[in-house]
Amino acid sequence: MTRKGILFVISGPSGVGKGTICKRLLAKMPDVYLSISATTRPPRSGELHGRDYYFLSRADFEHMINNNEFLEYAKVYNNYYGTPAAFVQDHLEKGNDVLLEIDIQGAMQIKKNFPEGVFIFIQPPSVDDLESRLNLRGKDSPESIQKRLSTCKWEMDQYIHYDYVIVNDDLQEAVRLLEAIILAERCRVK
Amino acid sequence: MTRKGILFVISGPSGVGKGTICKRLLAKMPDVYLSISATTRPPRSGELHGRDYYFLSRADFEHMINNNEFLEYAKVYNNYYGTPAAFVQDHLEKGNDVLLEIDIQGAMQIKKNFPEGVFIFIQPPSVDDLESRLNLRGKDSPESIQKRLSTCKWEMDQYIHYDYVIVNDDLQEAVRLLEAIILAERCRVK
Repeated sequence: MTRKGILFVISGPSGVGKGTICKRLLAKMPDVYLSISATTRPPRSGELHGRDYYFLSRADFEHMINNNEFLEYAKVYNNYYGTPAAFVQDHLEKGNDVLLEIDIQGAMQIKKNFPEGVFIFIQPPSVDDLESRLNLRGKDSPESIQKRLSTCKWEMDQYIHYDYVIVNDDLQEAVRLLEAIILAERCRVK
Repeated sequence: MTRKGILFVISGPSGVGKGTICKRLLAKMPDVYLSISATTRPPRSGELHGRDYYFLSRADFEHMINNNEFLEYAKVYNNYYGTPAAFVQDHLEKGNDVLLEIDIQGAMQIKKNFPEGVFIFIQPPSVDDLESRLNLRGKDSPESIQKRLSTCKWEMDQYIHYDYVIVNDDLQEAVRLLEAIILAERCRVK
């Protein structure tokens, strides 16, 4: 009997560094698979269908919405983004663990559709720290940073809906904790 | 606000190697404290009160039983053995995690008295493997081994009452998994 895989959903405030943590984790644990999103936006230079995204037509995407084929989806400006359930389910059936990086709203949609997932919240050491990270990106205006910070204060309280919290004050330590959570969950008695 | 410590209860069939796993874990994680048992048996050469055991008189031990001062206790032949609650509680209050190695019966008593503990079951790769381990000790008769094996088959099914199972087919890997469970539990949202 093959063990079923586990879905690990990684979320947290924007700018918290969850993308970097996931990338490092995947380098350390090659037996964990990253969930690939679908989108209707056109591919950018260097992006590959089936690696970076599944690039779909609007008609195909809406067809999948109507068939409940997404664990979550959202419309951002004029494009759809979503997590196809089939990719995740196929891997879980094969006994592979799947890592899914997503914003807080998306994570909450997934929790409704797939409550057996393991939900991990990445938290900045403090709101101040997050502010300096957003500034560091150098591509946001002060007004946009202020708006995002107030969203963030709300977002930081959302950890309560998650199974685990990792405070990202040291990247290496955060990756070590994420790895520990994956190893521990594999030992859990269901 | 100091975080409260976590009690990790390590149990499993006799001969499975849980003592060795705990020893190695403590060497890797000096911020985890090993629970010290109390007993009425006399100290053996080299054993120290407060390090190896709390060596108590029968009257003191029975007084503590009557005051519900044990997380669990048992009478083996003519001596008492027990886990004083105060040692564990004091450390947890200070925010220290405590490791407690105990047989299956003892673990189930602790679960009744302290359900907020994290219960970890160490499992041999197979009953055959356990048999060879018991033989390797070289100090048990074939009859005694047979009797212990049939107990063991029952014991191996008891994992169902635990939070985690670690299969001990490789000592280093088993220690790594125990460490992962401790790190992960520290990240859990209560």
